[in-house]
Amino acid sequence: MLALEYDDDIVVIDCGLLFPEENMPGVDLGIPDITYLVENWDKVRAILITHGHEDHIGGLPFVLPELDVPIYASRFAHGLISAKLRERGLLRESQLNVVEPHSPFTLGCFLIEFFRVSHSIPDSFGIAVTTPIGTVIHTGDFKIDHTPALGPPMDLAAIARLAGDEGALLLCSDSTYADLRGFTESEQVVGDALEQIIADAPDRVIVATFASLISRIQQVIDAAMRHNRKVTVVGRSMSNNVKMATNMGYLDAPPDTLVSLNEARRLPNDRVIIMATGSQGEPTSALVRIANGAHRDIAVEPGDTVVISASPIPGNELTVAKTIDNLFRQGANVIYSRTDTVHVHGHASQEELKTMLSIVNPRFFMPVQGEYRHLMAHAAIARSMGIPDESIFVLDDGDVLALTSDEGVVVDKVVAGSVFVDGRTFRDMNSSVFAERRRLARDGVVVVSATISASTGEVLTDPEIAAYGYVEMNERLELFKKTSKVVLTLLEDMGASALTLDKARNRVRDSISKFLHKETGRRPTVLTVIDYI
Amino acid sequence: MLALEYDDDIVVIDCGLLFPEENMPGVDLGIPDITYLVENWDKVRAILITHGHEDHIGGLPFVLPELDVPIYASRFAHGLISAKLRERGLLRESQLNVVEPHSPFTLGCFLIEFFRVSHSIPDSFGIAVTTPIGTVIHTGDFKIDHTPALGPPMDLAAIARLAGDEGALLLCSDSTYADLRGFTESEQVVGDALEQIIADAPDRVIVATFASLISRIQQVIDAAMRHNRKVTVVGRSMSNNVKMATNMGYLDAPPDTLVSLNEARRLPNDRVIIMATGSQGEPTSALVRIANGAHRDIAVEPGDTVVISASPIPGNELTVAKTIDNLFRQGANVIYSRTDTVHVHGHASQEELKTMLSIVNPRFFMPVQGEYRHLMAHAAIARSMGIPDESIFVLDDGDVLALTSDEGVVVDKVVAGSVFVDGRTFRDMNSSVFAERRRLARDGVVVVSATISASTGEVLTDPEIAAYGYVEMNERLELFKKTSKVVLTLLEDMGASALTLDKARNRVRDSISKFLHKETGRRPTVLTVIDYI
Repeated sequence: MLALEYDDDIVVIDCGLLFPEENMPGVDLGIPDITYLVENWDKVRAILITHGHEDHIGGLPFVLPELDVPIYASRFAHGLISAKLRERGLLRESQLNVVEPHSPFTLGCFLIEFFRVSHSIPDSFGIAVTTPIGTVIHTGDFKIDHTPALGPPMDLAAIARLAGDEGALLLCSDSTYADLRGFTESEQVVGDALEQIIADAPDRVIVATFASLISRIQQVIDAAMRHNRKVTVVGRSMSNNVKMATNMGYLDAPPDTLVSLNEARRLPNDRVIIMATGSQGEPTSALVRIANGAHRDIAVEPGDTVVISASPIPGNELTVAKTIDNLFRQGANVIYSRTDTVHVHGHASQEELKTMLSIVNPRFFMPVQGEYRHLMAHAAIARSMGIPDESIFVLDDGDVLALTSDEGVVVDKVVAGSVFVDGRTFRDMNSSVFAERRRLARDGVVVVSATISASTGEVLTDPEIAAYGYVEMNERLELFKKTSKVVLTLLEDMGASALTLDKARNRVRDSISKFLHKETGRRPTVLTVIDYI
Repeated sequence: MLALEYDDDIVVIDCGLLFPEENMPGVDLGIPDITYLVENWDKVRAILITHGHEDHIGGLPFVLPELDVPIYASRFAHGLISAKLRERGLLRESQLNVVEPHSPFTLGCFLIEFFRVSHSIPDSFGIAVTTPIGTVIHTGDFKIDHTPALGPPMDLAAIARLAGDEGALLLCSDSTYADLRGFTESEQVVGDALEQIIADAPDRVIVATFASLISRIQQVIDAAMRHNRKVTVVGRSMSNNVKMATNMGYLDAPPDTLVSLNEARRLPNDRVIIMATGSQGEPTSALVRIANGAHRDIAVEPGDTVVISASPIPGNELTVAKTIDNLFRQGANVIYSRTDTVHVHGHASQEELKTMLSIVNPRFFMPVQGEYRHLMAHAAIARSMGIPDESIFVLDDGDVLALTSDEGVVVDKVVAGSVFVDGRTFRDMNSSVFAERRRLARDGVVVVSATISASTGEVLTDPEIAAYGYVEMNERLELFKKTSKVVLTLLEDMGASALTLDKARNRVRDSISKFLHKETGRRPTVLTVIDYI
C-alpha cells in the first residue's frame, strides 16, 4: 500500500495482504496498518487498485470497515473484489468503481489515468497520477511481454506519453525480480511447451496453476481444442474465476471444450485435461488432495501426466516438492518448472526494468514491491542508468518522502507496516503471544495443580499433572506419578501456606521445569495452579 | 543408509542425519531407524562412510551406542567423525578405520574398494563392493568436475575398471540433481567469479559458505594472496575445519595469509577478507549475527562486500533471503547465487549421471540419495539409456531388494526409515506429540482449574484460568474473569459431584472451548483440572 498526499488530498494505491512467516504461528494473514489513513480519513479520496492479486486487494475486507472510501479498479479486479466483499457482507455499502485504461478522471487535486501492463492476471494496470508538481508513474506489477497469451501487449508508447517530454516526476516500479539478469520470457514459450506436452501425453493430463492465471487456462483450452481434448476445471477458486472470466469475455472457452467433471469422466482418458489449483502445494487444494489420494472424485491413474504450471512462491518450496513427490508415488509422470519450461513468472527482469526507467525517464525513482534486496538491486539498476543517488529512495514501511519538483527528502516516519489477524484480534509481529506459541510448539506444556489448606498448609490432594505436546500416552503414567510426588514434597518442604501465592507458584514452576528437563531432556512450559481453600 | 547383505555378512553404507520439517516442532534431527541391523547385529561387519557431510555421518553418535561396529572412512571424514564422537565421549570405544582409495580390503564375503569422486568436501569417495555374484558400485554424492578447486579430478577410468568388462551388477547412483538438465559447472567458474569480486571490492569482503567446503575456502585464500589481502575465519565449525584441513594438508593456507581476527582488525579494510558460516541463514551462525547487528566482534561497515557463496538448501530459502535483506539494511553490498556465479552445487546433473551409467554399465540400477521425484527422474534417465524397466529399482525406506545375477525382486519390507530425536526420546514422525505441538502453536493453551467439595458438590473457590500463547496480558483480565464465571455456573448447573471426574472435565472442556471460540475467534487447547476434596 502506497499513499500519495498533496495538501488536503490523499490517494492510496493497492491494499494487499501478506502471508505470514512461520515465526507467527496461528496467524492466517497480515494486512496494512492504516493508522495514518484513519487519522487522516477526511483527506483520503480513494483506493486505486492496480490488479486483482491477493497481495494487492486482499486487505480490502479488513480495511474498508475502518476506512470507507471509494475504490477504483479494472473490470476483472472489480469482479474479484466484489466476490470477496460479498462473501463478508460488505459489498452493499462499498463504493466500487470500474476504470478503463486511458480514461482519466480527477480525485481532489490529482488527475488519475490507468494504463495497461503485462502481468499474470487479466486487466493489470499501472497508474499515472498527475499532481500539481508533476506526474507519478506507478507500474503496478508488470513484465514487458510483447506476445502475451491473452489481451493486448503493453502499450509502451502510451507510458512514454504519460511521463511526458520532460519525463515523469517520480517512478515507482515493480522490483520483485530486480535481481534477475536479462529478460523474462514471454508467455508464448509456455504455450508452446504446454502444447507439446498435451500433444505427446499418452493419456489424461492434469494441469495445475494459479486460479487467477486466466491466460494459462486459455493456453490449455487452445491446446485442448487442437488436440481433440476436453477441459474440466476442479477447485472452487479456479472454477469461479473461469466462470467470471468467461462471462466478462476474457476467456474464450467454447462450451463444447469446457465440460463438467461428470462429462469428462465419460470420455476416454486421452481426451481429457483436468485443470486444478494447488500449484503451491496448498493443503486443501484439488491437486494436493489428488496427490495424497484423498480427492473425492479424482484419483491418479497410470499414464496420467501432471503439469505444475507455476514455480514455487518463496516459502512454498517444500510443500510443492512434497506434492510432486506424492504425485510420482501415485504413479503420475510429473512435469514441473525445473524439468520443462511450463511456467514463466509475471515480473520484469533487469533489462525490462531498464526499459521502463528509460521510457518514463523520471526525476526521482522509488523501487517498490519486493523484499529489501530487490529494492536495492533495482536502485543499483537506476544508478547504472545515470539517476543520481540522492534521487533514488529505498523506503521502509511508514517512511514519509517529501517531494518538490527538484528535491526529495524523507521527513518523517508514521505508524504503518503490517498487523496480523489472529482470530478477531489484530496483533503486531512482536506480540508476546507468538513467542509463547513458538515455545509451546518446541516442548509442549505441563500443568501442575495442587490444593492447599489455607489454615494448616496441608496439601489436600495429590498434586495433579496434565500435559499436552510433551510426552506420549505411554510415557505419562510413571513420569506424572513421579512428578506429582516431587511437587508434594516441594510444597510440604517449603511451607507453602507461609508464602504468597505467586511465590509458591514460581517456586513450583522453576523446580518442576528443572526436574522435567533432567528426566526427559526437554523444557516444557510449566503452568502451575495452586488453590488455597 | 543402505545395507548390503549376503549370507551371514552385512555391510552398511553411510549413517546420516535428517533435518526435520516444520510439521515436527521441537525436533532437532532425525536418524536412521536401525531396528533391522540391531536384530542382525552379529552379521554387520562395518559401516562404510562415503564422505564427511552430516547427512552421511551425522547419525553415528546415536547409532554406535546401539550398534558397535567398525567404521571405515576417508582421512577427512575420519577427522570429522572423531571430533563428533569425542564431543559425546564415544571416541574411545569406537572402532574407526581410515581408508585410502584403491586399497581393497575384505569384510566377510565382500571385497571393498573406495574410489575418488568430485563433491563439495575433501576426500569424497564412492565404494565398490564386490560380492559373490558381482560388483555393486555406490557413487556416494558426486559430480564430475574435471577441473576441481582442490585435489585430483575424478578417476573415471578407475571406476570403469572396478565395474569390469561386463559392467557392474548394480549401480547405486546419486540422484540429488537428476531433474536438472545438462552439466553441473566446474568449481573453476566459482573461483574466477570470486577472484573478480575480490579484485573489484573497494573495501572489506565477507565470504560466507559451508564450513566443510574446504575447496571454496582455498579459492578465497588463493585470491586473497593474489590481491594482497589477509583472510580471517570466524565461526567455530569453520575454524575447526580449517585447522583440521590445514593440519591434514588439504588446505594450503600460508600462516601469513590466514590471520586471527585481532590481526585482521589492525589492517585497513581493503586488505581483509572474513570467511564465515551462515550461508544457510542458520540463526546462531556468524553471518546471521553480523546481519542482525548482533555479532560481538564484527559489524557491517559502509563499503563492505558480502558474498554468499552457497545456494539455499530446500527449506532454507526464507531464512537465507532474510539474511541477505538484513545485510543490505546494514549497508553492505551483497552478492549471492542469483546475482552472480558465486556457487555451483556439488551434485551431478543429467548428462553427468548418464556418463556414470555409461561407464559403470550396470545390469541393475537403483537411484539413491534425493527425494522421490529425483529418484524417478534418475530412473527415467536410466530407461532412456536402454536399461529395461524391470532392472530399475526405485525403493522406499525398508524395501528389501533380492538380487541374483540375473533377476531382482523386492521381496520384503523391514522396519526402517527415520526416528526423530526429541530430548532423550526417539519418536516416529506420526507421534501424537507432534500433532499436539502443532495445535498448541496454532492457538495456544488455556487451563481451567476448579476445586469441588466431594460431599456437597459445592465449588470451593472461584475457578482459576491460566493461558499461554493465547491472548496478550492486557486482554486477560476481563476475559479470564468472564471465563471463570462461565465455569462456575457450568459446574453448579451440572451438579458436578454427581458426575465422574472424566465426565465433568470433558463437559467443562467442551463448553469452554466453544465459549472461547465465540469470544476470540480462536480455538485454544483447553486443559481442565478438577479436584474433588
